[in-house]
Amino acid sequence: MPVYQEMSKQQLSQEKQKLEKEYAEFCARNLKLDMSRGKPGKAQLDLTADMLDCVNSNMELKAEDGLDVRNYGGLDGIPEAKRLFSQLLDVSPDEIVIGGNSSLNLMYDMVSRAMLFGTEEDCKPWCKLDKVKFLCPVPGYDRHFAITEQFGIEMINIDMTSDGPDMDTVERLVSADEAIKGIWCVPMYSNPDGITYSDETVRRFAALRPAAKDFRIFWDNAYCVHHLGEVHDHLLNIMDECKQRGSEDMVYEFASTSKVSFPGSGVAVIASSRKNIARLKNQLSFQTIGYDKINQLRHVRYFKDADGIREHMKKHAAIIKPKFDLVLQMLEQEIAPLGIGTWNKPNGGYFISFNAMEGCASRIYELCQKGGVVLTKAGATFPYEKDPKDSNIRIAPTFPPLDELALAMQLFCICVKLASVEKLLA
Amino acid sequence: MPVYQEMSKQQLSQEKQKLEKEYAEFCARNLKLDMSRGKPGKAQLDLTADMLDCVNSNMELKAEDGLDVRNYGGLDGIPEAKRLFSQLLDVSPDEIVIGGNSSLNLMYDMVSRAMLFGTEEDCKPWCKLDKVKFLCPVPGYDRHFAITEQFGIEMINIDMTSDGPDMDTVERLVSADEAIKGIWCVPMYSNPDGITYSDETVRRFAALRPAAKDFRIFWDNAYCVHHLGEVHDHLLNIMDECKQRGSEDMVYEFASTSKVSFPGSGVAVIASSRKNIARLKNQLSFQTIGYDKINQLRHVRYFKDADGIREHMKKHAAIIKPKFDLVLQMLEQEIAPLGIGTWNKPNGGYFISFNAMEGCASRIYELCQKGGVVLTKAGATFPYEKDPKDSNIRIAPTFPPLDELALAMQLFCICVKLASVEKLLA
Repeated sequence: MPVYQEMSKQQLSQEKQKLEKEYAEFCARNLKLDMSRGKPGKAQLDLTADMLDCVNSNMELKAEDGLDVRNYGGLDGIPEAKRLFSQLLDVSPDEIVIGGNSSLNLMYDMVSRAMLFGTEEDCKPWCKLDKVKFLCPVPGYDRHFAITEQFGIEMINIDMTSDGPDMDTVERLVSADEAIKGIWCVPMYSNPDGITYSDETVRRFAALRPAAKDFRIFWDNAYCVHHLGEVHDHLLNIMDECKQRGSEDMVYEFASTSKVSFPGSGVAVIASSRKNIARLKNQLSFQTIGYDKINQLRHVRYFKDADGIREHMKKHAAIIKPKFDLVLQMLEQEIAPLGIGTWNKPNGGYFISFNAMEGCASRIYELCQKGGVVLTKAGATFPYEKDPKDSNIRIAPTFPPLDELALAMQLFCICVKLASVEKLLA
Repeated sequence: MPVYQEMSKQQLSQEKQKLEKEYAEFCARNLKLDMSRGKPGKAQLDLTADMLDCVNSNMELKAEDGLDVRNYGGLDGIPEAKRLFSQLLDVSPDEIVIGGNSSLNLMYDMVSRAMLFGTEEDCKPWCKLDKVKFLCPVPGYDRHFAITEQFGIEMINIDMTSDGPDMDTVERLVSADEAIKGIWCVPMYSNPDGITYSDETVRRFAALRPAAKDFRIFWDNAYCVHHLGEVHDHLLNIMDECKQRGSEDMVYEFASTSKVSFPGSGVAVIASSRKNIARLKNQLSFQTIGYDKINQLRHVRYFKDADGIREHMKKHAAIIKPKFDLVLQMLEQEIAPLGIGTWNKPNGGYFISFNAMEGCASRIYELCQKGGVVLTKAGATFPYEKDPKDSNIRIAPTFPPLDELALAMQLFCICVKLASVEKLLA
């Protein structure tokens, strides 16, 4: 079959009829499949079942500093949890705070505090400024953009390249505009592109000289250990790079075990400079007496150390790699020959980023939804849910079992083709 | 022995010498006792040990609506947790949101959101106003006052009576001053006085007609089931009273299991009108995907229903009632005959509120600290840590074992006497 763009109107019309028949057959099956979020599947949740036994009624529940983890106290986390996550992020234990169950919550709170109290002692709270802007590499994580939108922060799209955000533009903008106070980054296996920032990109981030002294890089290292195979990406340690340049106050790094142990019942962590962590701990002391230390202990007892986490992630990979392979194989087979889409082939993370022909993403979403497969909403990967090209769709293959995923992808491919044909005929 | 006020200078000097000797003997024992916070003791934590076994690797972990509690979702809590806490607070399940591990965190976040987004759609965010004021019944909970101080909210002292806050003043102020946006209340077994608001007081709260449409009552029902004995206080349901008057949007009610199960690993909850809860859920959806549902399930499986919680609280009472009795008995024996202090005799809660002779609280705190017993800091029970009379001391008897508590109270009584004699001689 020729690529769609080279087909005649008549050929396209015939193809459309064929696709509409296939689509109607699919609709008749009344599927109800969800590929909307980066959610682990049941088999992945079962992997950490034993963690629930790591703390029980027969055990002494003291942290290694003697603190009874069942009682109040321990604002920044029990020492063994701080050690575990400092190993994982390759920072010092006094450069991190162990949070609650959600890194998103830590990020939201960090922006919220910046709004109300500022990020530096001698800078104004952001809510007192006329204008606050954030740079948003696109496509990106919808929940990041939702936070900044919620706080009335103006978002500026930054294109992603295969090395990460377009750093020429980032450098130019942050050095010129004092209203730019932050940038959202998912530096490893970016959401949704699956791109890991190159060493050069990380170094250029560390070397930024923003016009705003209170500028912050929100470094959401959500997928720091979420490789799909033995051959995987490597991310330079931004904290190390910043320390060499004295710019470590510029970084807030986030991670969690949401996709390592249990989403919603994991442990989240924030890392930053000692100065920032000291300020954060003071601010946190007004908000809480401490996070769930029993759950911290549960995680430490189960994983033991960062290598324990890394080993555990291989079990996740064994479950989700075949799902990624299936998606890629079907796209390769069904879409590639038609020239109506491009996509990434990530070495980790939770998504495959699909770029349809311009102006087709919303229609593909709509067709899939009516056909019984919920995708992440078209546009969601852009600030204000506006994809300028209406092209990007985030495919989240992890949640459905393999057989359901195959069905969902069959429908997806039909919808991509149908939307493309419609577009070409329009 | 006559009351101190009736002693001659000579008698007081003799008494002072005697007390200084007793105090020095105590100091020589190098005690290190902590009565600073309302912290459960180890025996109390052991009571819920079995809860940790209520969720383990052999169990299916689904909520009754079929949601896998190990995965993302369930922003406002699993249905059975909502039912449990709606029973406990006697509200409808759609009038509550189950939060994380800390009601303090829920309160902080509620004030934080009010600062940034306001409490009503058509009212300004508090941070955009020239002045925001809160009423603070005193003595009160230091962490409440710390939150409002942190946000730059001006605090106005309201005297506590044996029926709760002085409602004449509350009514007069809130109806006259639009800048008054809130009041902190611990309506049952108040912190530290142990006073339960009378039915009349609750009704007057529900009937408030504040000048500010966006005024909120922060109803911290921290000790709603924390009775010390069979004879206990009863608190009228403010939500019911408000509903009769159409004022239910005025109330944010908070509770938690911090002093029921595990402090720091419990479950916190917020209740309010359906309108407020809808607004809250929308706002929360930017902050988190959901709180720890495994821990919610753990609590529901352990307690089963609100009666289960109430029964469980009797075990707590059996442990802490003797501690309260000891404190009261020693005050009765050592302090009452000398006329140098008054105190409450609460039927529940976590504190005994001691009022020393004016100008003596700081000195008592200091003497105790040097003697090896850490009390809640004098002044802490007042906004800005300023007790106008320097009189109130919050005694927290729950944490030390009974023998240590006896020692600590011996020292406390000596310090009260010594500070009083010093004052009378000055």
